[in-house]
Amino acid sequence: MVISSLDNNKVKKYKKLKKKKYRDLYNEFIVEGLHSVLEAFRCGMIIELILEEGEDLPFECPYVYVTKEIISKISSMETPSKVMALCKRFEEPEEIGDKVLVLDGIQDPGNLGTIIRSAKAFNIDTIVLSDDTVDLYNPKVIRSTQGMMFHISIIRKDVVTMLKVLKNMKYPIYGTNVRSGTDVKTLTKRDKNKYALVIGNEGNGLRQSVNMECDKNLYIKMNDKVESLNVGVAVSILLYELGN
Amino acid sequence: MVISSLDNNKVKKYKKLKKKKYRDLYNEFIVEGLHSVLEAFRCGMIIELILEEGEDLPFECPYVYVTKEIISKISSMETPSKVMALCKRFEEPEEIGDKVLVLDGIQDPGNLGTIIRSAKAFNIDTIVLSDDTVDLYNPKVIRSTQGMMFHISIIRKDVVTMLKVLKNMKYPIYGTNVRSGTDVKTLTKRDKNKYALVIGNEGNGLRQSVNMECDKNLYIKMNDKVESLNVGVAVSILLYELGN
Repeated sequence: MVISSLDNNKVKKYKKLKKKKYRDLYNEFIVEGLHSVLEAFRCGMIIELILEEGEDLPFECPYVYVTKEIISKISSMETPSKVMALCKRFEEPEEIGDKVLVLDGIQDPGNLGTIIRSAKAFNIDTIVLSDDTVDLYNPKVIRSTQGMMFHISIIRKDVVTMLKVLKNMKYPIYGTNVRSGTDVKTLTKRDKNKYALVIGNEGNGLRQSVNMECDKNLYIKMNDKVESLNVGVAVSILLYELGN
Repeated sequence: MVISSLDNNKVKKYKKLKKKKYRDLYNEFIVEGLHSVLEAFRCGMIIELILEEGEDLPFECPYVYVTKEIISKISSMETPSKVMALCKRFEEPEEIGDKVLVLDGIQDPGNLGTIIRSAKAFNIDTIVLSDDTVDLYNPKVIRSTQGMMFHISIIRKDVVTMLKVLKNMKYPIYGTNVRSGTDVKTLTKRDKNKYALVIGNEGNGLRQSVNMECDKNLYIKMNDKVESLNVGVAVSILLYELGN
């Protein structure tokens, strides 16, 4: 059977999940595109596949078929994918790993997605998102992580509270500063074993109250003419150095 | 005097410059936002400032005032900037520096802008853009470079032809490959003195005909679960390593 009515209850819900309010209410979200859907499947997160009529079932799993028109209403992409999935949201992990990335107020979904992808690439164990960081389940965030959000522990917490907890657990806290502090290249092996790296908002950098919790500020050496890098790039280079 | 008519000849031209066709025809383009406008001014590229009525003149320079409505018609941003400038396009440099970045078919304006910004940060001398790379004067590219496009030599050339020229001039040519080849971390000081690094298209990587010209393929070591990084991030990490 192919669902073709916008009044169908499932379809109504899929559409609602474009909004954060309903993702929070139902504790579910939509993943688009075969690549991301496969990663969600590997992690056992899929409730049901949503396929455009005519598509093959990519793996054994509960599914519904819908018309092309319905797909375009559910999708948040200009060119909708023919394969989507309804997923349940993560449970937050109770344990925190040795390598922690704390994101305080990242606004742009593309930046958050890119950072999550790089965090997995360079072996971060746990990502902490501040309450005012863009929603993890925003479709553009999901797309930009390229499925990597399913493979890394992510928790949402008040940043200052979290940093105090980490300090008690003897994590060195690294902030960032464009010009002054410690060149990330000069960190020793020991500096890289266990840490929390804190990243501030795109425009304003670290808040004063957060910066006060930092033991060290890291910077990336670069040409004097350049004030800063794209935040996704800057964080990725720091994680690359910390991971090596 | 404040221009308030959409039929004004200057305004008509500013609006046309949103399209590549007209940027090519007039050899001019529009820069938005005080930060980028200042960088353009420093490089002597401004023909005239375009200011929203009521704005202060930020520096001595020919200028026109226009209404808020006109600004919104010229702008390509959701929240238009009150300060813009009409600029003449670069003349292509005749000399090529020792550190060359070749971009073959980058499609996303944000990616191109981010890469140009990082290229300046890590002291690339010359950027070569293939004919099918997104237009350098696309408003989103300009915005993403954060003014850095005014501080680096950029030329547009057929990539295979260019690589043959560089090979004759004894530049080692570095390609990229996600998994195999040389870990960029293992490059010696000598490998980093003079080179051309070639980057392929976001989806498909290097074309066969381009890869055949490469002396070495570089890769970034990362977690096995991760297939690739965002292209802006990957290029930036390679440039960071090559610049250090």
